[in-house]
Amino acid sequence: MTRVSMEGKVLNENDALAAELRAEFAQHGVFAVNLISSPGSGKTALLECTLEAFPKSRRVAVLTGDIQTDADAARLAKYGFPVRQITTAGACHLDARMVRRALEGWDLSAIDLLFIENVGNLVCPTSYDLGEAKKIVLLSVTEGEEKPLKYPGIFYKAELMVLTKIDLLPYVPFRPEVAIANARSIRPDIAVLELSSLTGAGFEGWIEWVEAQLARR
Amino acid sequence: MTRVSMEGKVLNENDALAAELRAEFAQHGVFAVNLISSPGSGKTALLECTLEAFPKSRRVAVLTGDIQTDADAARLAKYGFPVRQITTAGACHLDARMVRRALEGWDLSAIDLLFIENVGNLVCPTSYDLGEAKKIVLLSVTEGEEKPLKYPGIFYKAELMVLTKIDLLPYVPFRPEVAIANARSIRPDIAVLELSSLTGAGFEGWIEWVEAQLARR
Repeated sequence: MTRVSMEGKVLNENDALAAELRAEFAQHGVFAVNLISSPGSGKTALLECTLEAFPKSRRVAVLTGDIQTDADAARLAKYGFPVRQITTAGACHLDARMVRRALEGWDLSAIDLLFIENVGNLVCPTSYDLGEAKKIVLLSVTEGEEKPLKYPGIFYKAELMVLTKIDLLPYVPFRPEVAIANARSIRPDIAVLELSSLTGAGFEGWIEWVEAQLARR
Repeated sequence: MTRVSMEGKVLNENDALAAELRAEFAQHGVFAVNLISSPGSGKTALLECTLEAFPKSRRVAVLTGDIQTDADAARLAKYGFPVRQITTAGACHLDARMVRRALEGWDLSAIDLLFIENVGNLVCPTSYDLGEAKKIVLLSVTEGEEKPLKYPGIFYKAELMVLTKIDLLPYVPFRPEVAIANARSIRPDIAVLELSSLTGAGFEGWIEWVEAQLARR
């Protein structure tokens, strides 16, 4: 139907732009990751801890997306790395055009690692390629172990699932092994990390994962 | 742009269908509510407790939306009330057409209260009128007190905000009064309830709210 073909057209245009971005990232040696999760799963908190852990010499930059407010950019800017807010003004996801625009004026050859924090939404961001090398899905242990089955799209496309807020495990009915089995029933080779940005538990595993990706770039 | 006008056309068609549904609900005395939240905020858990609390004579029915799986309908069916799953097959929200189709064969004059549990998504469901009398937004205390500012659309349209999972308040950096002030900066008259479906705390307030709506119908 008309609507579907319009959506198809928008996605095709986005894919073309994303392919250009991907080529540029590759050319300049930028490792770009696209962080996707529900609202409040802890994307910004993970990035805060990550930026805090990095030496100041780390060539990292962040684009952070939200429908309204630049609160996340304000939270992230204080670590001294380049951070820009993308405000989507109602759109439920980032697209390649927004990323392209937000990158304007940045020297990509000065960036090794680019975090793109998507709008909090487990559904729509899945369909929009941003030129990233990898998608990462975050799932907080408060959200329920069945979420990979209910939102299979993102768990199929993500190479890493980060189970967040594991400090809350004693208080919530969530079995990590069930969530992991559910995710692997969608994508058998999905990597899994478990961590808490509040306590720092499991955080070394995340930094190791990031460093390994950078080394392999 | 073409895309916007296509979206406008889809929304106009949806609004027309939703107006028809609203008229039918009114004609048959059905009080319909549209529950909207992030994935994992506890919509299904709230409905489980609600159905469990109701006397079997209560004329209540549930439509529950998900992208994949009929897990929620299975969870909710065991209380003995009519429950139907709407599987959106990828769509990030319910629309009026899906609701219309799911109602087929149900005698509306036998239903006083219809819960429509939307797809877990704080953004897209906001734009799609389902003919409901009221929208309710759920926000779990694990999601962060700034969410009303980041996702203002739904907090503007909802008449009630339910703060869920308050049993976790001792363990998370969440001040209910800040979340409420944020929600009221978007919609000054939004009603607020705080509850835990796990412990039952605050649950009477919710049942009272529902009964008051039914009495006022």
